[in-house]
Amino acid sequence: MSETEDDIATREEDEYSLDPRLVEAILDAVEQGDAGSVDALMEPLHAADIADLLEQIGGSERQALVKLWPQGFDGEILSELDESIREEVIEALPHDVLSEAVRELDSDDVVDLIEDLEEPVQERILDALEDSDRAAVEQSLTYPEYSAGRLMQREVVTAPEHWTVGEAIDYLRGAEELPDQFYHVILVDPRWHPTGYVTLGKLLSSKRNIALKDITEDSFRPIDVLDEEGDVAYAFNQYHLISAPVVDENDRLVGVITIDDAMAVLDEEHEEDVLHLAGVRGETSVADGPVDTARQRLPWLVVNLFTASLSAIVISQFEATITTLVALAALMPIVASTGGIAGTQSLAVSVRALATRDLTRSNARRVVLRELGAGMLNGIGLALILGIAGSLIFGQPLLGLVLGLAMVVNQVVAALAGVLVPLTLDKLGLDPALASGTFVTTMTDVMGFFAFLGLATVILL
Amino acid sequence: MSETEDDIATREEDEYSLDPRLVEAILDAVEQGDAGSVDALMEPLHAADIADLLEQIGGSERQALVKLWPQGFDGEILSELDESIREEVIEALPHDVLSEAVRELDSDDVVDLIEDLEEPVQERILDALEDSDRAAVEQSLTYPEYSAGRLMQREVVTAPEHWTVGEAIDYLRGAEELPDQFYHVILVDPRWHPTGYVTLGKLLSSKRNIALKDITEDSFRPIDVLDEEGDVAYAFNQYHLISAPVVDENDRLVGVITIDDAMAVLDEEHEEDVLHLAGVRGETSVADGPVDTARQRLPWLVVNLFTASLSAIVISQFEATITTLVALAALMPIVASTGGIAGTQSLAVSVRALATRDLTRSNARRVVLRELGAGMLNGIGLALILGIAGSLIFGQPLLGLVLGLAMVVNQVVAALAGVLVPLTLDKLGLDPALASGTFVTTMTDVMGFFAFLGLATVILL
Repeated sequence: MSETEDDIATREEDEYSLDPRLVEAILDAVEQGDAGSVDALMEPLHAADIADLLEQIGGSERQALVKLWPQGFDGEILSELDESIREEVIEALPHDVLSEAVRELDSDDVVDLIEDLEEPVQERILDALEDSDRAAVEQSLTYPEYSAGRLMQREVVTAPEHWTVGEAIDYLRGAEELPDQFYHVILVDPRWHPTGYVTLGKLLSSKRNIALKDITEDSFRPIDVLDEEGDVAYAFNQYHLISAPVVDENDRLVGVITIDDAMAVLDEEHEEDVLHLAGVRGETSVADGPVDTARQRLPWLVVNLFTASLSAIVISQFEATITTLVALAALMPIVASTGGIAGTQSLAVSVRALATRDLTRSNARRVVLRELGAGMLNGIGLALILGIAGSLIFGQPLLGLVLGLAMVVNQVVAALAGVLVPLTLDKLGLDPALASGTFVTTMTDVMGFFAFLGLATVILL
Repeated sequence: MSETEDDIATREEDEYSLDPRLVEAILDAVEQGDAGSVDALMEPLHAADIADLLEQIGGSERQALVKLWPQGFDGEILSELDESIREEVIEALPHDVLSEAVRELDSDDVVDLIEDLEEPVQERILDALEDSDRAAVEQSLTYPEYSAGRLMQREVVTAPEHWTVGEAIDYLRGAEELPDQFYHVILVDPRWHPTGYVTLGKLLSSKRNIALKDITEDSFRPIDVLDEEGDVAYAFNQYHLISAPVVDENDRLVGVITIDDAMAVLDEEHEEDVLHLAGVRGETSVADGPVDTARQRLPWLVVNLFTASLSAIVISQFEATITTLVALAALMPIVASTGGIAGTQSLAVSVRALATRDLTRSNARRVVLRELGAGMLNGIGLALILGIAGSLIFGQPLLGLVLGLAMVVNQVVAALAGVLVPLTLDKLGLDPALASGTFVTTMTDVMGFFAFLGLATVILL
């Protein structure tokens, strides 16, 4: 990293992180029960930063803050709260504050807010809504979780496809109520099928008598209401969409998704990939305590306990060899761990390439062959280093040969496992990131110990 | 995964991936030198998909395609091309095609296109631009790489801050040329300082005599031209920005960044995190061959060769112990590898929390203590399973005790290393993801072998 980049990084970090002194001051005010100071300190903060603050402070401090400053909680803060503490905060809020907070939200935000809450808390929030909003929210909840239907807002701005620029502008200027956020006017045919869209910028800069049809954008791309939200995020990023109409199974317009929601989904999908690859399951949050944290991680640790026992069984088959040449016991983790790293590298690259649709059925064969080649090349390079070093240190050229051969075998196995395992999961319709490093590492451990001790038995004894 | 989600995932994958049959058909046409068919097959594709196709096919097929279909290459396709093949494609294009392609791009896209190219190729593209565009591009290149200055577009739509809705609309409707994409009108004071912005939707739906100042958005948040692009992406995601004005050191407006560019940066930053954690360095692409791939991975493999030698040295200190009880050699990888998984879990969670600013100076102590607690809990849980199993299988309760104790020690070390290493790197202003799993795994390997063999020496011999 160059010096300039360093400087930038350091300054920036301070700019967007919550200032620790501010957090300190707020916690002091909470401790002293000084509601006025809390209000003065919190008021200028963005809802997203307030939500972060609530996640970062301790559980008892959070409870005290909510009790002291309930009137500060609006719908936006609740929307931004991490799921791990959302329920806790909502339950601590007085009824009137909660009602007012949820009433100011758009229907898609209410859906996002309540979809993971327990039934009774959900009910409490639905009760606070006006009847029409409640109906809209309940209808959205009929779409599957993680589908485009849950992500979209139902408020859309449309125009008949035969309108001119002038008609559209007159309509917009006369409209009673327009959504808070909209970037396109969606053209619909008489059967409510979206047929194109026009950006507001293009609308504003075009002459009144021009047909809307003639100034539509190429990027127009309707999204199926049942599409998985991760695929929606991919489409937004791939095609540089800003908003996209959502259609039902009859291609009728039912809503619109905007890029800010797609960006949030992209971010969550990435989080899931990183954590899955590392063998962490479930939702994590800085607000989690030690028990929750231990619980998210224990499953893969227990799995690993059993898979690592495979390594133990392999090694135990070679106890006679090890007894004869105990140096083998010291050297065998070198082969195994270098294989583990190579497998993790290949796995990370493959999972990422599958997520970005860069690795497909068309080029799977080429990528697998590439991994094979790369594994072979690095295996030979590492074998030379390790083989020569081993020969010199132990004065046994044959030991060096065994180390080198085992390294080549294990690097090839690692590279292939790293790409074949996620490809197979993907083909089965499963998340390729489920092939966590744990799994691939076990394969390279077992193969590393087996190749090294097996070759040693054949060549050295 | 529920059945519904499965169905969705499978259908979706087909929808957004390039159709393998289409790829096949295009390659067939290329092989037969049938330019007409290639044109007919490629023409309906989005530029981003064409770029993906070029990355996925083989090098010789790519060369043949470019030669057969040069006139199909426009600026958008070049922009979308992965850096790994961009230079190759550009160099293969006829001069007139390249000139026309780059002339149709906005200045920020040209900057993005050429910033990583070799000097002579850069020069070729700059020469193709008109003088004013060339000057704009060259000025953008004076901003540091990965800064907001490189990301912004220079075309902005502004209005004096004292204007009314009517004045702004009249100005926009009379403007000769407006940017392709804009979502806000930025208000500026006489010294060209941005003071707020108004969405086009709000503008369209407001009465003519309303002051722009009265309908500005709360989300307004100017970005420093030297801000690091990763921080810009964070700000867009955190504050749900759609576009943001960029200001120089005197707070003067110099450009605007839109969310689609920020989303692309967010995606790249995530890729970098995943690959860094896995110990892969440099830019990767499906178009890379085995040699490039091997080169990206060899550095950490060699590092690991040396760090793994530390494990070997630790183990070799206990050769006498292993000779006495050779079963220890078989059991020691269980403790080490379970520690490696725990370290990787803690590391992934910490690196992610630092990236999202959820882990800060304010709560670092709490998070470290949580990791300590979680490590202790899982250590005890695993120790019970492993200790009892070990006692029963080997009929030696003391061996079970050694396994259990070593497990607790190593789980605690792993959990702490996973959070303390990235926190330290972050404090030093370095990328926390540089603490790749390689590094943490070495610590848990060394500690695992040492604790297990050391305890065995003390307790069993």
